[in-house]
Amino acid sequence: MVSVIDSHIFKDIFGTAAMRNLWSDEARIAYYLEWEVALAKVQAKLNIIPQEACDEIVAKAKLENINFDKLKQETELIGYPVLGVVQQIVSLCRDGLGEWCHWGATTQDVTDSASVMAIRDSLDIIEADLDHIMGSVAQLAEDHRLTPMAGRSNLQQAVPISFGFKMARFLATLQRHKERIGEIRKRALTLEFGGAAGTLATLDNSVAFKCQAELARELGLAQPEIAWHTERDRIAEVGAFLAILCGTLSKNATDIKLMMQTEVGEVSEPYIPHRGSSSTMPNKFNPISCVYIHALAATVRQHSAALMDAMVEDHERSTGPWEIEWIVLPEVFILSAGALSQTKSMMAGLQAIRIVSEILSNTR
Amino acid sequence: MVSVIDSHIFKDIFGTAAMRNLWSDEARIAYYLEWEVALAKVQAKLNIIPQEACDEIVAKAKLENINFDKLKQETELIGYPVLGVVQQIVSLCRDGLGEWCHWGATTQDVTDSASVMAIRDSLDIIEADLDHIMGSVAQLAEDHRLTPMAGRSNLQQAVPISFGFKMARFLATLQRHKERIGEIRKRALTLEFGGAAGTLATLDNSVAFKCQAELARELGLAQPEIAWHTERDRIAEVGAFLAILCGTLSKNATDIKLMMQTEVGEVSEPYIPHRGSSSTMPNKFNPISCVYIHALAATVRQHSAALMDAMVEDHERSTGPWEIEWIVLPEVFILSAGALSQTKSMMAGLQAIRIVSEILSNTR
Amino acid sequence: MVSVIDSHIFKDIFGTAAMRNLWSDEARIAYYLEWEVALAKVQAKLNIIPQEACDEIVAKAKLENINFDKLKQETELIGYPVLGVVQQIVSLCRDGLGEWCHWGATTQDVTDSASVMAIRDSLDIIEADLDHIMGSVAQLAEDHRLTPMAGRSNLQQAVPISFGFKMARFLATLQRHKERIGEIRKRALTLEFGGAAGTLATLDNSVAFKCQAELARELGLAQPEIAWHTERDRIAEVGAFLAILCGTLSKNATDIKLMMQTEVGEVSEPYIPHRGSSSTMPNKFNPISCVYIHALAATVRQHSAALMDAMVEDHERSTGPWEIEWIVLPEVFILSAGALSQTKSMMAGLQAIRIVSEILSNTR
Amino acid sequence: MVSVIDSHIFKDIFGTAAMRNLWSDEARIAYYLEWEVALAKVQAKLNIIPQEACDEIVAKAKLENINFDKLKQETELIGYPVLGVVQQIVSLCRDGLGEWCHWGATTQDVTDSASVMAIRDSLDIIEADLDHIMGSVAQLAEDHRLTPMAGRSNLQQAVPISFGFKMARFLATLQRHKERIGEIRKRALTLEFGGAAGTLATLDNSVAFKCQAELARELGLAQPEIAWHTERDRIAEVGAFLAILCGTLSKNATDIKLMMQTEVGEVSEPYIPHRGSSSTMPNKFNPISCVYIHALAATVRQHSAALMDAMVEDHERSTGPWEIEWIVLPEVFILSAGALSQTKSMMAGLQAIRIVSEILSNTR
Repeated sequence: MVSVIDSHIFKDIFGTAAMRNLWSDEARIAYYLEWEVALAKVQAKLNIIPQEACDEIVAKAKLENINFDKLKQETELIGYPVLGVVQQIVSLCRDGLGEWCHWGATTQDVTDSASVMAIRDSLDIIEADLDHIMGSVAQLAEDHRLTPMAGRSNLQQAVPISFGFKMARFLATLQRHKERIGEIRKRALTLEFGGAAGTLATLDNSVAFKCQAELARELGLAQPEIAWHTERDRIAEVGAFLAILCGTLSKNATDIKLMMQTEVGEVSEPYIPHRGSSSTMPNKFNPISCVYIHALAATVRQHSAALMDAMVEDHERSTGPWEIEWIVLPEVFILSAGALSQTKSMMAGLQAIRIVSEILSNTR
Repeated sequence: MVSVIDSHIFKDIFGTAAMRNLWSDEARIAYYLEWEVALAKVQAKLNIIPQEACDEIVAKAKLENINFDKLKQETELIGYPVLGVVQQIVSLCRDGLGEWCHWGATTQDVTDSASVMAIRDSLDIIEADLDHIMGSVAQLAEDHRLTPMAGRSNLQQAVPISFGFKMARFLATLQRHKERIGEIRKRALTLEFGGAAGTLATLDNSVAFKCQAELARELGLAQPEIAWHTERDRIAEVGAFLAILCGTLSKNATDIKLMMQTEVGEVSEPYIPHRGSSSTMPNKFNPISCVYIHALAATVRQHSAALMDAMVEDHERSTGPWEIEWIVLPEVFILSAGALSQTKSMMAGLQAIRIVSEILSNTR
Repeated sequence: MVSVIDSHIFKDIFGTAAMRNLWSDEARIAYYLEWEVALAKVQAKLNIIPQEACDEIVAKAKLENINFDKLKQETELIGYPVLGVVQQIVSLCRDGLGEWCHWGATTQDVTDSASVMAIRDSLDIIEADLDHIMGSVAQLAEDHRLTPMAGRSNLQQAVPISFGFKMARFLATLQRHKERIGEIRKRALTLEFGGAAGTLATLDNSVAFKCQAELARELGLAQPEIAWHTERDRIAEVGAFLAILCGTLSKNATDIKLMMQTEVGEVSEPYIPHRGSSSTMPNKFNPISCVYIHALAATVRQHSAALMDAMVEDHERSTGPWEIEWIVLPEVFILSAGALSQTKSMMAGLQAIRIVSEILSNTR
Repeated sequence: MVSVIDSHIFKDIFGTAAMRNLWSDEARIAYYLEWEVALAKVQAKLNIIPQEACDEIVAKAKLENINFDKLKQETELIGYPVLGVVQQIVSLCRDGLGEWCHWGATTQDVTDSASVMAIRDSLDIIEADLDHIMGSVAQLAEDHRLTPMAGRSNLQQAVPISFGFKMARFLATLQRHKERIGEIRKRALTLEFGGAAGTLATLDNSVAFKCQAELARELGLAQPEIAWHTERDRIAEVGAFLAILCGTLSKNATDIKLMMQTEVGEVSEPYIPHRGSSSTMPNKFNPISCVYIHALAATVRQHSAALMDAMVEDHERSTGPWEIEWIVLPEVFILSAGALSQTKSMMAGLQAIRIVSEILSNTR
C-alpha cells in the first residue's frame, strides 16, 4: 500500500478503521448494491418493473457475488465502476430479469447517492468523536477553571488566564461545529436520481417523481429539488466543514505543543511508555499527536480547495471536475477521522503537569 | 495602484464600488470609531467611565479628524492600526478625557468587531445581488421551460433537456446559497470584546458581561459566548461560503462560454457594441463576463484555503495566522462582489440566440 | 483499500504499478535498509564501527526479515517507523552487534534519504514517460504540420492554424519540463545525514564529514552542504515541478476534450471497444483519459501548496509540517504518474478524425 | 484603497514602493508603450511599416499622453486594456500613421511581454534583497559560530548547536534560491509575439521570425521557440519560486518568534522604540516582522496554486485561466517583496539577547 491511509504501517495513525470501513472498495460497492436493490423494490411497488425481476435482483445483488477483479477490468475500460456492477447483476440474474436493474438511472445517480450515504454514516462517526472530545474538554475546563496560567499574546506572556478558560474557548468552538453538522446534514443527505441528463426522462411522467420520492424514503435520504449531478455545492460544503473542523483541532494542537516545550512544560500529551521517544535522545517527550494533527489539518484544507475546484463543472455531466471528488472525498474523511482520533485520545488523557502560579511570577 | 481591486483600470471589472466602500481604509477606520464611540456610550451609562469623557469622545472620534499619514507611520511602528487611532482620539480630546477611550479593550477587540461589521454589511450586498440574479435566472427558467436543447454529458450531446431546466438547476443552487447566508449570519455577526487575553479582566466582574452585552446591542451584533480572538472558524466559514458561491457562479459561466462557442452558438452574453471585441479579429464575440468569473472563482477558492490556514493560531492572541485575514478578507469580498456583478449583468441580458430543435437533429 | 491510489478498482486509473512500487510500505523499508547497510559499510571502512558488526548488519538487514505487524505497532507507539526497523535489526543480529547499526544517525536522516532515493527513481520513470509522450507528440506535430484547423481564441474560431502547430506548442512545453528535471535532480538528490540536530556531533570531528561524503557516494546521492531536516525547499520544489507538469498535461487534455465535443469532432482519444461508453447512452464516446488528467492535475496542484506549507518548520526538527510530506509526497508522485500514463496512451493513439478544411469554411 | 498592497495604512508593511512601481497601472502601460515603440522601430528597420509611421509612433506613444479615465472605460467595454492603449496611440498620431502601430500583433503579445518585463525587473529587486539578507545572515553565522544554544527537536531541547549553525542552514537555503533565480530567468524572460493564434500569420513568412528575433533583442528578452499564449509553465514556475522562497523566510520567522518567547528569550527582532508594543500590555515586545512574514508566506503559497490553476488553458487563447494571472501575479510579487523587506530589516538588526550556556544547563 502507498497512501498513508492504506499503508499497513501508517493507516491507524492517519485514519481509523471505522472510517475506512465506510470508504473502502467493498463499502462503495455495498452502497451501490443497496441503491440498486432499493430502486428495484420501489419500482416493483410502482409497477414500473415486474415483481419477479425485483425479487431476483434483491436475491442476487449481494456483495459476496461481486467479482472484484472483473470489476477492475471493466472500470478501467469504461471509466466508471457502476456499469460494471450492473452488468454483473445482469449476469447473475436468471432469465434476463437483471435487465430491469438500474431502470431509468444513470451511472452518476448511483455514485452520487453512494457518496451521500457514506457521508451520512461518516458524519455520525464525526459527531460521536466530537461528543467524546467535548466531554474531555468540558471536564478539563471544569477541573481547571481556577488553575492560573499565563495568557499569551504574540507568544509573549500577557495577563493571567486559567487553563480552564483556554479549554472553555476550545469547547465553545466545538459546539459551533456541532451546530454546523446539523445544517450540513439538512442539505447534503440528498438522493441523486435523475437519469442521463437529470430529467428523469426515461420514466413516465406520471410516476417519475413518485419513484424518486419513494427511493429517497427507502434510502433515508432527502428528495432532491432537482438533479445536482453538476451542482456540487453540497459536497464542497462538506469538505469545507471538515477543513474548518480540522483547523480548530490544529489550533488546539498548536497550543498543546507550545505548552509542551521544554522551557514551558505546562501540559503534556498522555504519557505512554516509549510513545514519542527518540532514536537519539531518550530524554525527550515528543508531542506526537499534535504533530499528526497539524499535518492532517494542513492537508485537509488543501483538499477542501480541490473540492471547491470540483464545482466548476460543465453542462449536465462533467468532464473531470467530478473525478476530483473521487480522489479527494474518501481521503478527506479518513484524514479528518485521523485528526479527531488523535485529538480524542490526547484530550482524554491530557496531563497538566506544571500549570502553577510560579510560572506567572516569571512574567516580565 | 497595483492590485486589480484598486487599479484605476481594473477595479470595476474585478470588484464593485459598493463593496470597496465597506473595506477601504476609510471604512475600516470608520468602523473602529463607531466601535469606540459605542463602547464609550455603554460604559458611561454603566458608570464605568465619566459621562463627560463619553461626550468628549463622541464629539471628537470622527473620521474627518483622523490624520491618515500619521496613522500610517504609527501603524508601521506598532504593527497594528488601532492603537494609533486611539492615540489620535486621546490627543483630540480635551483635559485628558480621551484616556477613557478604549477602556478595558484590546486592539483585536476593535479590529475583529470592525471586520464583523464589514462582513455584516457585505452580506447584505451579496444577498441583494443573489436576489437580483435569482430573479433573472427564474425568468429564464420560466421563459425557456420548453425550449429544447441537447443535454450534455462528458461534453457529448446526450438526451434532450430544455434550457429552462438548465436554468432551474442553477436557481436551485442559488437558493441553497441564500439558506447558507442565514446560517452564517447567525454565527459570524458576533461582537469581539474580551480585553488582552479575552477574560475581560480589566473590567470589574460585576459589570464586565453587562458591558459586553450592551456593547453588542449598541452595535447590532450578537454577544459572544466567550472570546474568539484565536478561534477563527467564523471567519473561515465566511471565506468558504464565498468560495463555494463563486464555484456556483463559475459553473454557470463555464456552461455559458461553452454554449457561446462558434460551433455551438446557443446563447450569448448580452450584446454591447465593442464589448468582447478583439484587436485582430473583429468578427469574434468573446464571453468576457464568463472569463472574469472563472478567474475570480479560482482566486477566491485559494483565498478560502488561506483563511482556513489562518485558523491555526497560537494561544490567546496569535503570531501571524491572524494577519492572513488582513490580507485576504477584504480581497475575498471584493472579488466575490466582482463575480456576482459580472453574473448579474450577464444573466439580466442573456441572449438565447440559437437554442433550436435543429441542433438536436444533429445528435449522433 | 480506500485511497484511489491503492483501491483495487481504481489504482491503475489514477496511478501506475511502476510508481507504486517505489512508494509502497515495502519500498520504503527497503530504502531504509539500503541506507543502514550503506552506513555500516562506510563506517566499518572508516573504522568507526567493527567490521564484524558491519558484516552481521549486512547479513541481517534484509526486507524478508522485517516483521511488518510488529513494525506497525512500534510505529504507532513511537510515532516514527525508523526506530522500529533499527530495533528489529538489533534483535536479528547476534551478540549485540546490531547496536552498531544506525551509528550517529537520527530517524530523519534515514527517512529523508529514503524519500530522496524514491524521488530519484521516480524522476527516472517520469522522464521516461515524458520521452514517450514527446515522441508521440513530435510525430503528431510532423504528420499534421499542414493539417489546417481553426485556431481558437476565447472559444471562438479565430485565424487558421495547423493541428501540427498545436502539437508543436505542447512539445515545446514538454521540452522545458525535461530541462527542469535536470535542475531539480541537481538540488534534490542530496543525502541527509546529520544526527539529532544536524551537527553530526555523535561522530568524531576527524571523521564525520568523511563518513558523510562516503555514505553519499555509496548511495549515489550528493553530499549536503549542511543538514536540511527543516529546510524543505528541495521537496517543495519537487512538488511544484510535478504540479506544473500536470498543469501542462491538463491544458492538453482540455484541448482534446473540447475538440472531442459532438459539435466539434476534430480529434478523438484512441478508440477501444466499450471504452468511454455510457450506461444510458451507447452512442456517446467520452474523453475518459482527459477527464482523469483534469482531476489528477487539480489534486496535485493543491498537494503542491501543502508541500509549500510543509516548509514552515520549527527549529532543527519540526512538529507537524514535516509530516505533511509523509501524507502528500507518495500521493503526489502516484497521481502524477497516473496523469502521465493517461497522457501517454492517449497521445500514442490520438485520432485526428475530422480536422478538415470544411470546418474552416464554417468560420463566421 | 482596499487591498493591503495599496492601502495607505498597510502598503509599506505588506509590500515595498520599489516593487509597487513595477506593477502599478502606470508601470503596466509604460511597458505596453515600450513594447509598441520597440515593435515600430524593428518593423520600420525591416521595411514592414514606413519609417515615418515609426517616428510618429515613437513621438506620441508616451505615458504622459495616455488618458487613464478613457482607458478605464475602454477596458471595461472591450475586456482588455491593450486595444484601448493602441486606439489612443492611433488618435494621437497624425495622418493615420498610428494605424501602423501594433502591426501583426495581438493583445496578449503585449500583455504577456509586459508581464515578462515586470518579472525581469522584479527578479532584480528580489535578488538584491536576497543578497542583502544573505550578507546579514552570513555575518550572524560567523559571529555566532561558537555561540552555544539548544538544538530543538519536536519543540524539545535536544543536543547543543550554535546559533551560527542555525544561521548557516538558513544561508545555505538562500543560496539555493539564488541558483533558482538564474534558472527561472533563462526560461521566463521570453518575448511573446505571435499574433492572433500564435502563428505570426499576419507578417510575411520571409520576415516574420526576423521581426520576432529583432523585437526580442530590442527588448532584451529571449526569442520564444514558439508562441506560449496558453502554455503558462513559465509563469507558474515564477509563482512557485516566490512561494518556496517565502516558505524559507517563514521558516526563519518561525524560529525567531519561538526564540522570542518570554520563556525562551534567546533572540529578538531589532528594538525600535514603540515597535511591537501593545495597547494593553506595555511590557511586551512582539515579533512584528515575523508575524507579517508568516501571513505573507501563507498567502503567497495559495497564490502559487492559483497560478498553477491558470495553466489549464483552452486552445490558442483562453477563457478565464489567463485572467487568474492578472489578479494574482502583481500581488504575489508585492507580497513577496514585503516578506523580503521585513526579513531584511529583521536580520540586519537581529539581537541575540540571551543565547548563553546557562540555558543549556536547564536541559532535562
